[in-house]
Amino acid sequence: MSDKMIYYFGKSGCDGKGADKQLLGGKGLNLAQMTDIGLPVPPGFTITTACCDQYYKQGGKLPVGLIEEVKLNVTRLEGELDKKFGDDSNPLLVSVRSGAAVSMPGMMDTILNLGLTDSAVTGLAKATGNQRFAYDAYRRLINMFGGVVMEIEHEHFEKAFSAIKEKFKVELDTDVPAEGLVELCDAYKAVYQKHTGDEFPQDPYSQLTLAVEAVFKSWNTTRAIRYREVEGIRGLLGTAVNCQSMVYGNMGNDSGTGVAFTRNPSTGENKFYGEFLVNAQGEDVVAGIRTPQPVEEMPGWTTDAFPQIGADVHKQLLSIKDILENHYKDMQDIEFTIERGNLYMLQTRTGKRTGAAAVRVACEMVQEGLIEEKTGVTRIPANDLTQLLLPSFDPKAKDAAEVLTQGLPASPGASVGKLAFTADEAVERTAAGEKVILCRKETSPEDVDGMHSAAGILTSTGGMTSHAAVVARGWGRCCVAGAGEIQIDEEKRKITVAGKTLTHDDTVSIDGTTGEVMVGEVATQSPELSGDFATVMSWADKYRTLKIRTNADSPEDAQRAREFGAQGIGLCRTEHMFFEGDRITAVREMILAKDEADRRTALDQLLPFQRDDFVGIFTAMKGLPVTVRLLDPPLHEFLPHEGKAQEEMAAHMGVSLEEVTSRVEQLHESNPMLGHRGCRLSVTYPEILEMQVRAIVEAAIACQEKDIEAHPEIMIPLVGAATELKLLRGLTEKTIDLVKAEKGVESLDILIGTMIEIPRAALTADQVAEFADFFSFGTNDLTQMTFGYSRDDINSFLPDYLKKELLADDPFQTLDQTGVGQLVKMGVKKGRNARKELKVGICGEHGGDPSSIDFCHRVGLDYVSCSPFRVPIARLAAAQAAIANG
Amino acid sequence: MSDKMIYYFGKSGCDGKGADKQLLGGKGLNLAQMTDIGLPVPPGFTITTACCDQYYKQGGKLPVGLIEEVKLNVTRLEGELDKKFGDDSNPLLVSVRSGAAVSMPGMMDTILNLGLTDSAVTGLAKATGNQRFAYDAYRRLINMFGGVVMEIEHEHFEKAFSAIKEKFKVELDTDVPAEGLVELCDAYKAVYQKHTGDEFPQDPYSQLTLAVEAVFKSWNTTRAIRYREVEGIRGLLGTAVNCQSMVYGNMGNDSGTGVAFTRNPSTGENKFYGEFLVNAQGEDVVAGIRTPQPVEEMPGWTTDAFPQIGADVHKQLLSIKDILENHYKDMQDIEFTIERGNLYMLQTRTGKRTGAAAVRVACEMVQEGLIEEKTGVTRIPANDLTQLLLPSFDPKAKDAAEVLTQGLPASPGASVGKLAFTADEAVERTAAGEKVILCRKETSPEDVDGMHSAAGILTSTGGMTSHAAVVARGWGRCCVAGAGEIQIDEEKRKITVAGKTLTHDDTVSIDGTTGEVMVGEVATQSPELSGDFATVMSWADKYRTLKIRTNADSPEDAQRAREFGAQGIGLCRTEHMFFEGDRITAVREMILAKDEADRRTALDQLLPFQRDDFVGIFTAMKGLPVTVRLLDPPLHEFLPHEGKAQEEMAAHMGVSLEEVTSRVEQLHESNPMLGHRGCRLSVTYPEILEMQVRAIVEAAIACQEKDIEAHPEIMIPLVGAATELKLLRGLTEKTIDLVKAEKGVESLDILIGTMIEIPRAALTADQVAEFADFFSFGTNDLTQMTFGYSRDDINSFLPDYLKKELLADDPFQTLDQTGVGQLVKMGVKKGRNARKELKVGICGEHGGDPSSIDFCHRVGLDYVSCSPFRVPIARLAAAQAAIANG
Repeated sequence: MSDKMIYYFGKSGCDGKGADKQLLGGKGLNLAQMTDIGLPVPPGFTITTACCDQYYKQGGKLPVGLIEEVKLNVTRLEGELDKKFGDDSNPLLVSVRSGAAVSMPGMMDTILNLGLTDSAVTGLAKATGNQRFAYDAYRRLINMFGGVVMEIEHEHFEKAFSAIKEKFKVELDTDVPAEGLVELCDAYKAVYQKHTGDEFPQDPYSQLTLAVEAVFKSWNTTRAIRYREVEGIRGLLGTAVNCQSMVYGNMGNDSGTGVAFTRNPSTGENKFYGEFLVNAQGEDVVAGIRTPQPVEEMPGWTTDAFPQIGADVHKQLLSIKDILENHYKDMQDIEFTIERGNLYMLQTRTGKRTGAAAVRVACEMVQEGLIEEKTGVTRIPANDLTQLLLPSFDPKAKDAAEVLTQGLPASPGASVGKLAFTADEAVERTAAGEKVILCRKETSPEDVDGMHSAAGILTSTGGMTSHAAVVARGWGRCCVAGAGEIQIDEEKRKITVAGKTLTHDDTVSIDGTTGEVMVGEVATQSPELSGDFATVMSWADKYRTLKIRTNADSPEDAQRAREFGAQGIGLCRTEHMFFEGDRITAVREMILAKDEADRRTALDQLLPFQRDDFVGIFTAMKGLPVTVRLLDPPLHEFLPHEGKAQEEMAAHMGVSLEEVTSRVEQLHESNPMLGHRGCRLSVTYPEILEMQVRAIVEAAIACQEKDIEAHPEIMIPLVGAATELKLLRGLTEKTIDLVKAEKGVESLDILIGTMIEIPRAALTADQVAEFADFFSFGTNDLTQMTFGYSRDDINSFLPDYLKKELLADDPFQTLDQTGVGQLVKMGVKKGRNARKELKVGICGEHGGDPSSIDFCHRVGLDYVSCSPFRVPIARLAAAQAAIANG
Repeated sequence: MSDKMIYYFGKSGCDGKGADKQLLGGKGLNLAQMTDIGLPVPPGFTITTACCDQYYKQGGKLPVGLIEEVKLNVTRLEGELDKKFGDDSNPLLVSVRSGAAVSMPGMMDTILNLGLTDSAVTGLAKATGNQRFAYDAYRRLINMFGGVVMEIEHEHFEKAFSAIKEKFKVELDTDVPAEGLVELCDAYKAVYQKHTGDEFPQDPYSQLTLAVEAVFKSWNTTRAIRYREVEGIRGLLGTAVNCQSMVYGNMGNDSGTGVAFTRNPSTGENKFYGEFLVNAQGEDVVAGIRTPQPVEEMPGWTTDAFPQIGADVHKQLLSIKDILENHYKDMQDIEFTIERGNLYMLQTRTGKRTGAAAVRVACEMVQEGLIEEKTGVTRIPANDLTQLLLPSFDPKAKDAAEVLTQGLPASPGASVGKLAFTADEAVERTAAGEKVILCRKETSPEDVDGMHSAAGILTSTGGMTSHAAVVARGWGRCCVAGAGEIQIDEEKRKITVAGKTLTHDDTVSIDGTTGEVMVGEVATQSPELSGDFATVMSWADKYRTLKIRTNADSPEDAQRAREFGAQGIGLCRTEHMFFEGDRITAVREMILAKDEADRRTALDQLLPFQRDDFVGIFTAMKGLPVTVRLLDPPLHEFLPHEGKAQEEMAAHMGVSLEEVTSRVEQLHESNPMLGHRGCRLSVTYPEILEMQVRAIVEAAIACQEKDIEAHPEIMIPLVGAATELKLLRGLTEKTIDLVKAEKGVESLDILIGTMIEIPRAALTADQVAEFADFFSFGTNDLTQMTFGYSRDDINSFLPDYLKKELLADDPFQTLDQTGVGQLVKMGVKKGRNARKELKVGICGEHGGDPSSIDFCHRVGLDYVSCSPFRVPIARLAAAQAAIANG
């Protein structure tokens, strides 16, 4: 930990301009940097995240000397602003904000107007000449301080406020006169004393000390922890504390506050984009409690709407926008306040954006010469491409649809589902297999679980920067916000829009790109993959060295993956084919067979189906390699386990129920994951392998006859010992030769390889490689066995493991480079040592995960294989890996 | 493969004296060596095992040039013996015997008298002056050749023989006159032609060629394969073929044949020991069809019994015995024939012996100065100590027992079981949980499965070298052979002895050390561990560097293991303790608990039990280290899975059945091996760990107060990530400190370590070692996860894997050094790199397997831990490992 606990920013100096984001937090660093490049930032100081870490390490004690340092910095602030902390004539007021290295919107509590006391409030009234303003600020402080620091429920303050409004016979907060607010402050202090047992602190330094501690504490509230869990944010020291002198957007109609993006965060269009509330504090915008004026673009606010704020301020803001983009070379998300015609920048940070916006911004910034192509590639979080690949509504279906109402297009996409009214309901119904749209007046951090579960999010208040909108965009979840016509009755689980009622059992379709809410299920369509998307993909293909294949089991999947740019199939599972139509009966006959002859008879029935499957897939992939994995699951997976289904099967097949149940029993395994499956099946029943290989070879020959190139790669699964592969490769080659001889075909390009998915296969990869033309790492099973985790059972302890940080990530989502990764590295190294030209890929689900792809690039794989839908993501991630690893 | 296909042995030279056993087989090499040191060996030649390998590699074709080579060697033999192959005046006859590098008694087929034809038989009659003898030899050849080479059922020949006996009105084979045997040969040739469609070959070279091929074929008969499987014999090229000129023990009362051991193979006593049949062929002894004269020791046969065989021959035999022991420095098993007063050595090989004999022979040979102490240590197959550790009958109980009859003490030990009459019955009833004694007239290779299953073997015919005796001794299975009074009725499943009848439902007790067969169950007692056994153990302890610990969960086991020489407990499983008496109810309350408080209440009930368990174990081990593994199995193992048991549990605990069934359902796992168990339980339920640690610490303090040293080592199971161990070590230390503070104890010697049983733990052993005082390799689970084999399910494919030689051994019996061993090595290396003083052991079942112990020695473990019973075996194996690895 650096010795320096506090970094000052202001006219008299800027300590933190070259400091580390880890230490100052994103907000703190940006305030320092904005100050440094001469932008109008209210001066203040930042207490480092290391102090927060110390606070927790010492079991909840502020680091020694911190408060003395704070006092020195307050004194410096007093000098710069010519105000005094707690002064009864011209008091210095500050905001206290949290700010970690990673932005966590809405998660951390903020305190404004800190420094007001009974005497300072009179000073503020004097200095501003506005008693109402001063007491309004004071009551807000007591309310926020009481809530955030002392955890007093808001309703207690709300009740006191209602009493005052009743007394003064007014409806709106803003109509309460100054003397009412003076009374309200006394009432609030009484609430404070009643619930805490102490007077509201009249020493501003006491307030500051308690507030700093409250920020530190807010780092580890359940909701903050939960947010980090959901977002996968780990390894941070804690939060910094930003103390900044107050400026006010609520000092009349020459004041206001706004948040804006330097470009459109939803579409990426290069237009200044934001929301502005006149005579309001910043929190009013962010919290989404009041819906901001529907200003489509920032320029709008200069003209008629707000005559008291001049065009100069607007020009200044536009110029600052350019300065910031030029400085950060990226789209910025800014907060500003105008106090009596003076513009102040309160915050800037890299703007969150949708996947579509990320692509467009990257493309246009490259065109504008602001960034290089390579930088453009790295600017798009690969996972965010998911959003572009989401379906949209079919225009014809949409034309015919009944539009219920329209809200803000808060996060693009097209979602269909039944209405759910609470986060819990959304979680439960989704778990039960329903698709739901979570419908809330507004969302709060308590709702994140439900938001994560839901297919889409719909709110009746809040703007483009409300909690719902920001969180939904972060996840690429479709969201329509601020659909104000909707009346929600949470208790009765229904909504009403202009007399029309929909219940929890009704389906709606929401368009996050237009904000439309439609009745019933509207058909969706696949996305367009052209324009900027195609540009980015072409850059990605230019820079990546990894090949991208896909996991596909059908001609349709194969076709889609090709369109997404797949360069082959890395995993074609054959077992799915066994379930279709009448085939399952033949499969079951094979399983019930008494001897090899009976098994062969049943397999003969399957052969033509399998051959046709492969002809379809080879045709779809015309000329690209297709890795076919031989039968993998244990045989019992093809038999029904429920009594009724077993009876049906027996009746259908004309065998006795006993025959079925006894075979099911015989095949039962304690740990099927580690049982009689994969190549072990081929060892005991070579005739299954022979049928499958024959189907592949016959299909390849059939394609050849139609002048369609076919490059099958036969993959033998679950090999743990080279001897297995030796035996089965021999059998495979024999079958290939047999079919070739039968058909009179001389040349055929077929590779034979194996999955490396058992730890022992990786450990003995040199021996295994002797019999393999290629390796494909099956990292799903490899992860199961390396960790000793059954993927089906892991949920009994994984949440605890993530919460207690025993694991950094779910190892089935992100490849465990420390453990499993060692086996992958070892497998690649030993395999290539034994066979230089060995082709090596990965076909576990990690093949579509950007950080795992980075690892695959570093260990020198030839390709990754992932689901069709993730192919573009993998292409981009592969390029990012190539660029990052130079 | 060496180019030389055939090695000659005889007076004119001995090609094979320096050759390899792998190439010549054991029999061939020993014939060459005996010839070389001047012993009277009938000359002959050996076709190499490499030829057998070639034969199979070429798909069942004899190697090119082999027959030409054979002819050259026959010619050489003709020259040496002055006889001619197929000659009608003085024909050369040969035996053709198989002989692999590892002895497989009774497994390979033998052909005698080869070279006899219609014309040669007249020559033999002339040369021997004995027509009866010549035609007897001829009919034997046709019978053996027909059976072995042409697979004609013996009964067809038997029928022809019966017809002849009837015609000549005689009872015994030996009473058939010469003209009867002449007729018999014609009848046999007719049988041969009828069943093969060909004449019996009249060209001796045709006979030889077919016989050589038949030997090669016999290498891969089902019974040969099965024998190799049972014995774990793998990696051989094939069998050699020994062609040796014939000598005859059946040429009258001056002839005979015998098998003998240079020392007693059952007790090890240094007395020449064997069996002799006058006027008989060797096969008569080995096959056990005739019971040899009960000659207690070889010297007996010189005196009255066989006056026509002189004392000189006896002296010569005794001198050869000494020459052989001096040459081979080990106890020999020899076959000899006396032909008309001339002694011939037909075979010598290292004598199989019981464990007791191995110990005694080693001790006495060291005393005699024949071998060194270290050699003595290596001479005892460590596993054979099992036999010495087998129980014997309690003398008092035996005095009171009813002795049914007495047979030969063919393989020592004391076995009790119900009578089973076929191999299949023995297999089935054993599998069903019964203990059975397999009772057969004689055994044959078809019976090996049943013999392996049975607790003991009882035969009514056959001697000390019969199939039953040899096989049983090899396995250390108790066997009484040749109990001739027993009449077996296999069909009715009963035996009769002197009017007394016992059925399949009656229990007998057989004493393999005395040959007694007793009615009913006779109590057994533990073995004596003194005398030669103690000497061998003292040598073992002198040479070994590995420490030997034991796996023990109770004071009784701990005590027994100490007596066997255990130097500590390497694995004390705590879950077994959870099942005893009333504890299971408390355990189930803990599992059904709604929250942590309820769980703690239930755990509080378990605490005193666990503490007492540990006090008992620490006391038994006084001062030796005790590694206690915290709870390992998934919780559902403690709940009943059957409906009725669940009802009982619900009633007993006063909860609803639904509560029980729903918890069982909730805890159900698809792959429990990879589920919520081991340290994962402690992560989710830290209170379980706290209770167990508290019990251990309180027990250690209680012992300390009674001046009993206690050195607990707390072992945290199933760690896969260092973070887990960090967390749980912290919790453990906290609990230790808490209890120490409560009890006012300052110093306490407790180590905290972990099992390495998950591949990832081995891969990240450097990180794990940071928090571990010791590692203990749990190679059972490590093998499961490294191979991806569920031990509970492996039997669906393991037999195929062993048969097809995909695996060299069952990896749960013998550590897989190639794969799993890499992880062990890695774990040791990385662990010690991170923590130099790290203590490292193994507590999987491999800890008691000699070849795995050798591996553990080589990778530098500090100790192995095994079941109490295997501790002496481990001590010996550890010494052998230390000696073998210099």
